[in-house]
Parts: sequence; C-alpha cells; structure tokens
Amino acid sequence: MKSRNPIRLGMVGGGKGAFIGEVHRAASKLDGKYILCAGALSSDPRKSIASGKELGLDEDRIYETFEDMILKESRRDDSIEAVSIVTPNNTHFPIAQCCLDAGLHVICDKPFTLTSAQADQLIEKARKQNLVLAVTYNYSGYPMVRQARAMIRDGEIGKIRIIQAEYAQGWLSEPIERDGHKQALWRTDPERSGMAGCVGDIGTHAYHLICFTSGLTPKSLCADVSTFVEGRKLDDNANILLRFDGNATGMIWTSQVAIGNNNGLKLRIFGDKGGIEWNQEHPNELIFSPLNQPSQKITTGSPNAKIEASSISRLPPGHPEGYLEAFANLYTEIADSIMDARVGRFANTHTNTPSGYDGKQGAIFVESVIRSSSSGSIWVNL
Amino acid sequence: MKSRNPIRLGMVGGGKGAFIGEVHRAASKLDGKYILCAGALSSDPRKSIASGKELGLDEDRIYETFEDMILKESRRDDSIEAVSIVTPNNTHFPIAQCCLDAGLHVICDKPFTLTSAQADQLIEKARKQNLVLAVTYNYSGYPMVRQARAMIRDGEIGKIRIIQAEYAQGWLSEPIERDGHKQALWRTDPERSGMAGCVGDIGTHAYHLICFTSGLTPKSLCADVSTFVEGRKLDDNANILLRFDGNATGMIWTSQVAIGNNNGLKLRIFGDKGGIEWNQEHPNELIFSPLNQPSQKITTGSPNAKIEASSISRLPPGHPEGYLEAFANLYTEIADSIMDARVGRFANTHTNTPSGYDGKQGAIFVESVIRSSSSGSIWVNL
Amino acid sequence: MKSRNPIRLGMVGGGKGAFIGEVHRAASKLDGKYILCAGALSSDPRKSIASGKELGLDEDRIYETFEDMILKESRRDDSIEAVSIVTPNNTHFPIAQCCLDAGLHVICDKPFTLTSAQADQLIEKARKQNLVLAVTYNYSGYPMVRQARAMIRDGEIGKIRIIQAEYAQGWLSEPIERDGHKQALWRTDPERSGMAGCVGDIGTHAYHLICFTSGLTPKSLCADVSTFVEGRKLDDNANILLRFDGNATGMIWTSQVAIGNNNGLKLRIFGDKGGIEWNQEHPNELIFSPLNQPSQKITTGSPNAKIEASSISRLPPGHPEGYLEAFANLYTEIADSIMDARVGRFANTHTNTPSGYDGKQGAIFVESVIRSSSSGSIWVNL
Amino acid sequence: MKSRNPIRLGMVGGGKGAFIGEVHRAASKLDGKYILCAGALSSDPRKSIASGKELGLDEDRIYETFEDMILKESRRDDSIEAVSIVTPNNTHFPIAQCCLDAGLHVICDKPFTLTSAQADQLIEKARKQNLVLAVTYNYSGYPMVRQARAMIRDGEIGKIRIIQAEYAQGWLSEPIERDGHKQALWRTDPERSGMAGCVGDIGTHAYHLICFTSGLTPKSLCADVSTFVEGRKLDDNANILLRFDGNATGMIWTSQVAIGNNNGLKLRIFGDKGGIEWNQEHPNELIFSPLNQPSQKITTGSPNAKIEASSISRLPPGHPEGYLEAFANLYTEIADSIMDARVGRFANTHTNTPSGYDGKQGAIFVESVIRSSSSGSIWVNL
Repeated sequence: MKSRNPIRLGMVGGGKGAFIGEVHRAASKLDGKYILCAGALSSDPRKSIASGKELGLDEDRIYETFEDMILKESRRDDSIEAVSIVTPNNTHFPIAQCCLDAGLHVICDKPFTLTSAQADQLIEKARKQNLVLAVTYNYSGYPMVRQARAMIRDGEIGKIRIIQAEYAQGWLSEPIERDGHKQALWRTDPERSGMAGCVGDIGTHAYHLICFTSGLTPKSLCADVSTFVEGRKLDDNANILLRFDGNATGMIWTSQVAIGNNNGLKLRIFGDKGGIEWNQEHPNELIFSPLNQPSQKITTGSPNAKIEASSISRLPPGHPEGYLEAFANLYTEIADSIMDARVGRFANTHTNTPSGYDGKQGAIFVESVIRSSSSGSIWVNL
Repeated sequence: MKSRNPIRLGMVGGGKGAFIGEVHRAASKLDGKYILCAGALSSDPRKSIASGKELGLDEDRIYETFEDMILKESRRDDSIEAVSIVTPNNTHFPIAQCCLDAGLHVICDKPFTLTSAQADQLIEKARKQNLVLAVTYNYSGYPMVRQARAMIRDGEIGKIRIIQAEYAQGWLSEPIERDGHKQALWRTDPERSGMAGCVGDIGTHAYHLICFTSGLTPKSLCADVSTFVEGRKLDDNANILLRFDGNATGMIWTSQVAIGNNNGLKLRIFGDKGGIEWNQEHPNELIFSPLNQPSQKITTGSPNAKIEASSISRLPPGHPEGYLEAFANLYTEIADSIMDARVGRFANTHTNTPSGYDGKQGAIFVESVIRSSSSGSIWVNL
Repeated sequence: MKSRNPIRLGMVGGGKGAFIGEVHRAASKLDGKYILCAGALSSDPRKSIASGKELGLDEDRIYETFEDMILKESRRDDSIEAVSIVTPNNTHFPIAQCCLDAGLHVICDKPFTLTSAQADQLIEKARKQNLVLAVTYNYSGYPMVRQARAMIRDGEIGKIRIIQAEYAQGWLSEPIERDGHKQALWRTDPERSGMAGCVGDIGTHAYHLICFTSGLTPKSLCADVSTFVEGRKLDDNANILLRFDGNATGMIWTSQVAIGNNNGLKLRIFGDKGGIEWNQEHPNELIFSPLNQPSQKITTGSPNAKIEASSISRLPPGHPEGYLEAFANLYTEIADSIMDARVGRFANTHTNTPSGYDGKQGAIFVESVIRSSSSGSIWVNL
Repeated sequence: MKSRNPIRLGMVGGGKGAFIGEVHRAASKLDGKYILCAGALSSDPRKSIASGKELGLDEDRIYETFEDMILKESRRDDSIEAVSIVTPNNTHFPIAQCCLDAGLHVICDKPFTLTSAQADQLIEKARKQNLVLAVTYNYSGYPMVRQARAMIRDGEIGKIRIIQAEYAQGWLSEPIERDGHKQALWRTDPERSGMAGCVGDIGTHAYHLICFTSGLTPKSLCADVSTFVEGRKLDDNANILLRFDGNATGMIWTSQVAIGNNNGLKLRIFGDKGGIEWNQEHPNELIFSPLNQPSQKITTGSPNAKIEASSISRLPPGHPEGYLEAFANLYTEIADSIMDARVGRFANTHTNTPSGYDGKQGAIFVESVIRSSSSGSIWVNL
C-alpha cells in the first residue's frame, strides 16, 4: 500500500558533532519508516555540506540553509514530506513556522518553542492544514512509561495523591562552557536556550513525564531556581512544588550540578490504591506496589504487562532496550500519523505521541517556573 | 573506676505493646552502660505495674505515675540518675521538666516538645544544673551517617549546593486509626501529637539528618502540607522547599501515605566537589561521588572510612548493623556524657549526640512548616 | 515462674580483641534471657583475667582455664548452667566434652568439631543427659531466612530443582596472616582450624543455610579447592557441585579472596513453582518469584510474611535488623530449650535452632570437600 | 571511497515470527553499513516469500531456498557480498559451507556448528579464501564488556584467580514446547539444536564471555547437566566447574528453568589486584573493586573508561544502550573487516569480533560438557 511507503524526511540541524541530531536519525531509521532525503544540517554552510556528504545524502539535496531546503524541495516530485528540527531552542519556532507554511509535517526536538505564544501559533498552523506537529519528549517512548500510564489510567493505583519527579545530572557542575564545551555552551546561553537552562533542558522532560503518565496537569507551582556555577547565565538547579486539580501534590527536582548523577530521571506516583516507581537509567523495570501487597517488579514479560508496553517492545524481557529504542518508538508512531495524514485521516490524533500541545505545556511550565522564581518563589498558576 | 559504673535509669512510658519503649530499653542494654532500675511505664497504673513486672523490675520501683517515681526515687540511696521519656509527644515537656527539676538527666524521644518555647525552658533548666538533656534523633547514630558528616566537615564534597532529603512511609495510606490501630491512633491525634502529624513524626528526622550531616541550618522554608486520608486530623504528607545560608537550597518530602515505602529515609547532599547518598534501609553503605571520578560505595571497611564511623561500628563490614545498633550508639554516647557529669565535667558537650538544642530545632521546623502551610504555603523564616 | 529465670552462662574464649566472643555476649544479652556469670576468656591466664574484669565479672568467677571454671562452678549453688564456647575450632571438642560431662548445656560456635566422629561423641553425650547442644549457625536466625524456609516447607516454590549458594569475602586476598593479623592467623593455621580454611570458616555457613532452608541434604559433591595466596597453608577458595536426593542439583562457591566482597552470603533456590533469593548484606528482604508472576520483595510487613519470620522480628519493616539480632534470635531459642530442660522437657527439640546434628553435618561437609579435592576433585558421597 | 560503501547483505532464515533474524536486521541497519538485498528467509517457501515482501526486498531477490539465493545472486553484478545465517543450529554448517564456497563472507548466529570438526572445516575454508567468518556472540559487543576486557588486559585486576559466570533464564520452567511454543520447540529438539539444549543456547554465551574478557581458555571442566522438565529431550540446567591454565578456577551456571530470571547473564572475575562484576540486565555499569579500595561504578563517562568502551558507545552516560546497540557494534566491526577484505587486507583480524575460532571454542565447550556429563560428570579436557 503506497500510503505506507517510508516517509521522505528532511533534517534541519544535526551536523557533525551534534548529539541529538544523530539520535533522531538513528531513531527514524530503526523501524524503516523514514528515508532521510535532504538536510540543512548546520548554520555553517560548509559544515552543513560536509555533514550531508558524510551521511550519504544526494549532493543536490544538501542545503546551506533551511529556507533553501524548503524552497527547493517543494519543486521536486520526490519532495520531503516531513522535517526533523534538531537545532538550538531559539530557532525551533522560525524553522517550524516555515516548514508548516510549506505544508510539511514537523518533528521538533524539545523544549519546542521559547514561549507558549509561539507554541500556539504553530499549533494553529498545523491544525488548519492537518499537518502533524510532534515534539520529541522521548522518555514517553519507553515501554515501562507506557505501562505506568496504562496502569494509572486503568485505576490500578487508584486516585492519585502524590507525584515525585526528578531529573538530576552532574555534568555542568563546573563552568565547562568557558572551555568551549559545545553541548554546555548553547545550553547555558540565553540567546539560544531562552529564559531557562536546566529547567528548560531537562526539567521539561520531568514535567512532561508527570503529565503523560498521570493524566493530570498541574494547576500551580512554586519554584526555587538557582545558578550555582559562578558566571553561568542560566539556572542549573530548580526545586519546584506542584499542585494538581483534585488535591494531588508533587515535587520536581531538576539539576545539572548534582555530582554523581548521569541522567537520573525518576518518577514516583502514589495513589490511594498503590504506587509506581520508574528510573530511566534502568528503564525496563517498573516497580508496582499495590496497597497491602508486596512490591512487584514488572517487565514486558510480566503477566500484568499491558499491551501498551509490550506492543512497543522489540525484545523479550531481560534483553535491555534503551534510549534509542524509546526514541524510535516515538518516530514510528509519528510515522503512522503522517501516513494517516497522506490519506486524509486527521493527523495529531495519536494519543501517545507528544505533540505541539505538549510542547506548549512545556513552554508554559518554563514560563511559570521563571515567573515564580523571579517574583520571590511565590505560587503561580500555570 | 566508680564514675564509669553503669547508669541507673528510670523510664516513663514504654509499657506493653509500645514500640519505641522497647527500642530504648534494647538500645540502653547493648553496651552495658545502663541498668534499668525503675519505671512508670504507662498512664494506666495497672498496665504500668504489669509491664514493670514483666521487665523484672523490683516491685517497689514500679510506679503508677512519673511524679511518684521521681519523688520516691529521690529518697533512695541508689536512686535513678537519668530518665528515658518514651511517652506520646504532648507529655514530653511536663515529664522532662519534672525530671530536670529533680536533678535527673533526661533522654527524651523525639520530636521533643510541642513548641520551641517549651524546648527553651528545658534547655535552660538543664544548662543551669549541668544536666544532660538528650533527644533521640536515632538515625544520626548510624556509622555511615557519621561518615557523611565527617566527610562533609572535611571538605570532601566541597561547598554544599543542594540537599535532598525524604522520609516516605506508606502505613497510614488508609484510615487505620479508625480501627483503633494503637500506633496510628496517637500519631494522628492533635491532642497527643501536637500541631503536626507526619511532619512531626518523621519529617523532623529528615530535618535533623540534614542539619546533622551538612552542618547547615535552613534559614527559610516553604511548605505544602496535605492530609490525604479523609477524616484524618493531622497531615500525612508534606512537600517542603528549604533555603540555607550561603545559597544552598534543598527539599524535604515526608509522607506516610506513599504506598510501597516502609521506612524510606534518604539523604543526598551535593557540593561543588562531590556528592553523597545514604538510604536508611541499606544503612551500611554510603555512596560517594567525587567530582570527575566514579561513584564509590563506602563501608566501614573502606580505606577512606572515617574514625567517626568505624569507632561506632561493632562488626566487620558486610555484617549488617541496623536500627537498634544505631540507637544504642546514641545511648552509649549519652552515657559517656552522664558519666562525665558525675565527675563535674560539663554535660551536653558530646558534639555527636542530639541534644535539647536539636530538639528545639525540630520544634522550630514543625512550627515553621505549619506556619508556612497555614498561610498559603508562603516562605517563612526559621 | 522460676523455670523461666535468666540462664546463668559461662564463656570459654572471647577475651579482649576477639570478634565472635563479643558477638555471642551481645546476642545473649539482647532479650535478657542470659546472665553472663563466669568466664575462662583466654588461653593466656593474664589476658583471661583482664578480660573478665573488663566485662565486670565477679573476680572469683574469672578463671584461668576452662577446666578450672567447670570444676569450681560445679561447687557453687549459683553455678552456671550453660557454656558458650567461642575458641578456635580445634578446642571446641575437648571443651564441649568437658562441659557436657559436667552436666552443662553447650552453645558452641561453628564449625563445631574438626571431625564428624567427634561430633557424634558430643551428640551422644548430650542426648544421654538431655542437655542442649547448640551450634551457632547464626545466619539461620535472620527472619527472612526463616521466611524462605517456611515458604519452601509450605510448597510455595514447588519441588526444588536448583540451589545456588555462595559465600564470598575478599579480606584474605593478601597474606595478611604473615603480618600477624589475629583473625587471619588462626583461620589459616591447620593446627587451630583443622583440615579446611575458607571451606570450614564460611563454606559451612553456606552449606548449613542450604540444608536449613531447603529441607534437603546433599547426597554427593564434587569440589575444586584452591589456595591462591602463596604460602598459605589452607584453602582460600572452593567451587563445589552438589547433588541432592530427588534430582535437585546445586553449587556452592566460597571464597576469601574475592576482592570487593565483604560478607557476601547469598542463597537462591528454584523449584517448579517459583524461586527465592536472599542476600545476607541486605537481610531484611526476600525476593520471591512465583511461576508466571512478577518477582516480589517480601519483608516482615508483607501480607505473605510467615509467622516464622515476623515472630522473630523486633522492629517494623524498613527498620533494619542485622547480624546481632539474627544471632540473638538463636540465643533466645536456645534459652527456651534450656528452660524447657530445667523442667524435664526434652532438650534439643527446637526445630529451628542449629544443633550438634547440624554441626556434624558441617563436619561431614568439610571432610567430603577435602576428600573430593584431595582425590582429584571426584564425586564423593556425604 | 568506494571500498567503504555499504555491504550488500543476504539473509538465510529470519522470516516472520523469528526473533533473532529481526535482531540481526536491526543491528545491521543501525550504523548504515549494510543494505539487506536478498533473502531466503524461511525453509517454507511461501513464508520465505511473504517475509521478503514484508521487508521490502526486490521480488527477484526473494528466494525459496538458500541454495537458490547463492546461485542466482552469484550471477548478478550487484550480488550480495555477505550472508547472515539465522537459522536453527543444525543448518548453520551446510549453509555456511555453501556461502563460503561461493566466496561470500559469513555472519553466523551462535552457537555456530554442532561439532568442533564442522567448525574446523568452515574456519579452514574461510582462511583459504580470506573471507570473513563471524559468529555473533553478541554480548561481547557491550561497551562495559569491552571495558572489562581492556582493564583485565591492562593488569588492573592483576593475575586472575577466580571466574564466576552464570546465565539464568526461567522461561522454560514448564514444558511449553508441548504447546507448540515456536522458540521453545526448536531449542528443545535435538534434531535442530544438536546435543545440548540450555548449554548450547545460552551456556555458550557465558563461556564465550569468560574467554573474551579474561583472555584465558579453560583447560578442563566437570559438568553436572540436568533436564528438569519431564519429557524434555535436551538439558535445561547445567552446573559446571572450570580450570584454567595458571591455576585460575571458575564456575558456570546456566539454566532455563530458574524462575524469576529473565536473561540473567552475569560475570565476575577476581584477580590478585581487584575484581570486576557485570550484569547484562544493567549493561551500562561495570563494578570495579580495586584491592583495598572502595568498589566503583564505571560507566562510559567515567574518567577510567577505556577507549575500547567509549568508542563503541553511541550516547552519553546515563542514556541506556541495550541489546540491539551491542549487537550492532558487532555488525559494524564485521563490516569494517569485510570492507578491509574488499581491498585485500586480510579478514578476520578484528581482534574484538567473535569469529569462527570462537564458534569452534563454543562447540568444544558443548562437546566437553556433554562428554563430562555423560561419563558421570568427570573432569574432561577441552
């Protein structure tokens, strides 16, 4: 069926040395649902071309700028259908805008736009044209995160009371941006990252995971935001209180100066009938503690594993699946939405895949944290 | 040397079925530094007498009331020298007052007094008479907690930036106080527990551990306190932000409705040169993450174990020491202080042992949390 | 009831600097069922006396030799009733013999006697006089070991197929006996330890744990025994295959040169309906994996905790109990047997407490391992 | 450079429903070094064709038999250069033979051939024609396994004394082959699996891992092999003792009836200067215990991470890499060898990649285990 042919993909950003661009490419490739056809892979034209060649793109589809790519591709019969945007945060908005205007589906790295107002514009554009607008909150692609979500939805932990999330890293404990560390440089630069550092870069992941799994959205928060490394221009730690509708409360701790932590994203949710616990560094296990029962370790092989988890698992239990596989799960779901769009089925309906809406929530979260913090860490509504 | 003879101890509270009284007795016995001589073990005289007999106390030293014990013991040549107070929170103050007035050293269960003003009075009384006034924040007696404290004092994690503490239990997830569960009953009763439930009962332990190990005292906090179980009269969960002098920040999560948690007291502290991590349920290990080095698991057998840890460890590494041993460590240190006091050396000087001062800090913490919470979860100074 | 008065205990060995003597004393004291009245605490008379004074024994009950203690105590009205033997292995037999001949109950440290023939003699002596003869395989005193045993007895893992046990330490990785390390010295000396080093010292614990929990006794074994440290006179590592009646098979690995291991005693048993897993360094958890169900973490607070576990647990779940508490559980059970014996109820009937019979099994194990190994690691019957 | 163009790959086996075929395809795709061009994907021609279509192969390159594929491909200009063999064990030999005879490089799933004599023939064939002959002992592709290997090679744990390996699964605890469980069926069928079940299927992985990381080869072994599930035709558990040159000893436990284990491949190696420990289910961590130092957790981000580990890691530390990534590492190294072979550089030289030689060692291991076991579990030389 032609409508299920692989999607012709273009990429903006992700040239040599980029971490996340390579991840997007690997993720798009794993299930064979995309062909990377074109790229404007760097803001530096020479690097863009060198990177494109290295990736084996046809020379006439390696572009110096994203505008160029969009323009010239639109004239081709075999034009790209979708664009992955893997540039620094500040450029997501103009690029996505341009892509949507050209009728291209958009897969944007998080944290999407710098403001929620920008997010609204993009959502509206996508909606009007029935284009897919996905935001890669990739941790939602882990089978055991889906398991947690399905269990909560099915009432297995009861009414939610408490949500504890944290995302702790330690790699920015010293001012490595001063030594020109590429990954540190743009993340600590307000020009490129927007109003928040750690809060935007990783706090938004924790925030999304909370909303995604619990089905709840915080109504207010109180944030204490710090910059511990001298001279750094953006936050590198934040302690946040959350309140949800229905009286549930929660906390987010996000840090990039917590020495000893690599990529410590953890989520715990407690209801009146049970609790669940998940740790990204050991992603294939979910601890489930039913009320008045021993804690259990759920894997995809467990009899109480949900179809939502096992259906996106590629391997038997005990065969570790990691970050790339979770990322690929999103790409594959996005592909399904794009393929649906080809035949006129309304896009953006895949309820599992983070979309512009989730990206907007992330922007609101960042705005709210900064607003709270800059007002003396008061409670603010989201 | 007579001055080192075992201490003649009396006990108030701790009759049949009491949990913490039995712990105090076992802890006092382990190193042979105390002899339990007298007791007023229950507010119910009959139960008091039955309990005393069961413990093998001389019949004439089993008392119906603590006032009786203090009065009659004072007339004996072999009078008790110290009293362990293991009654519900609301009675700590009057009993301790009475004991101190009678010239007796006091070992009081936490959270000491219901108010900081009461604490001040007791501290002053003890100070004037050179009496020991100890408060059993027992988790400070674990060797690896001492290790953490000594490492921080010696600069091994550098200047502190972030402190994350949590104390999560799940046993009050249902309204078991309604079924007459004895331990639940007094803990959820404002008459006996004071203004706070979970915050006072276990939150104060987390708070003390923070101060004890870090050497820092919070200057302000913002608390979101909840009562999740319908009809419960005191809090059963609190999410708290902390700020310390010198810009360090922190969080405390304390809960008794976190299903799946037994006694989950955890502490993580991060400085600019390293991080440490300790978990009460696996108390004989301390994770130490020096900057730009792999994380290490420190036990008492490690070459970098401090004398502060190994000197209070009774067994070789790998032979688990638990809650009772840690509690006994406090009792033994308190005994040393009392023995010193016998020969005129000023009491309350054992810097490791939690004292009335620490008890007062706990009361201030509780007062501040409730003040913050009842004012809409605003920031308040401690 | 007089028959339940504390037991008057004597001790042989356990002078200053001894590790296990101190453990026995603490264990005997914890539940108040013993009073240490007399001691011959060292083979060096001066040390014996100094140690006795330090322990606060009456001066006329501090003896220079164990023979002296047995003789002189027998003339007292308040004579000791039982003796704890905590000397090096080679002296267990003559001391126990002497005690039993004098009508004293015996509590002997493991590995009991050097040969099974000696064990038989002691068992026979005890049997004839209805004396308690206990051997402190202390790891059997952990609540979760009792839980495992009860679950297996109740068929919860079905018919046993596989037993994997290991006891790994690393402290003898270097020839520290050459530097006069006291604990290393006697353990590596055939004169004092008998025919085996590591196999006798810790391998017997693993062996006992297997028999105790599974209810099975191996019928044959094949052992590969090594001495890795040059110049050492006894083994420091052994790899052992086991076969049980009913086709179950198993392995024991025991080592004192496994760097990185402190006291790594672990047991895993698999039947046709489930598996269990226990680790001495985290003794308060038992992992239970029922067939086609998720693995569970059982603690004393779990609804499926057995009375055999919870009845010997002193604290609520999550409050760690350790090595001393487990040791004390044995001492308390032994006390119950001795108290029964006072009133003519046949001793040695406490089915939980390791006895001379278990000690004999340990001797047979050691003999079999050495016989197998010295014959080229062939299979031998036990 | 043309010599670095992607390799044109054919596949034998791996049709619909096959687990390992899909893994090979995903692994070959991840780094873009292969193009799957042709396939004889099932012994059932119809299934072979359906599977080929599903994979999007050109219709004229979907073959009914492997012989057909080899013949017809040899006539094409764009013929396949290499073949992945992912069929049941018994067919590896004839297929590989055929491929090598046709001048094709071979990537064969483990456990390679049923006998070591067959392995020798294939090795010789490959050697004569300078063809790559790789065997996918995939666990050797994990970064932390490479780390262990490099550390051992560099003397960081000193002279090896003890090696403990285990590979425990539980999925064959019941006779699921009787219900037609596809994966169980061929693994328990001597016709297709050869003389061993569990020993061949997973024991060979543990064996390879030992040799690969330690650099040692066992000289003799003693094996106790069991079939616990009634009616099963091949072994489902084996307990094995190993002896190495230089006095090192070891054990392998391999089981498919260990309930509660998913894919529990674990390796521990102890030398006279340190120990290492690795667990496949948490593959991104290596525990390193240097003599007289605390144990460390090494990840690819650790300062003592070796280039051998970090160079095959695709993601920053804390971003889990799993089974597929490790498998892909092998495929990429094999691709490098094939590309070298294109330009006349001798193949099979990549010292990291398991080759026919390793496959042969696996066959020798299986033969030795069965020989030992069937002779009464005596020691046999390898």
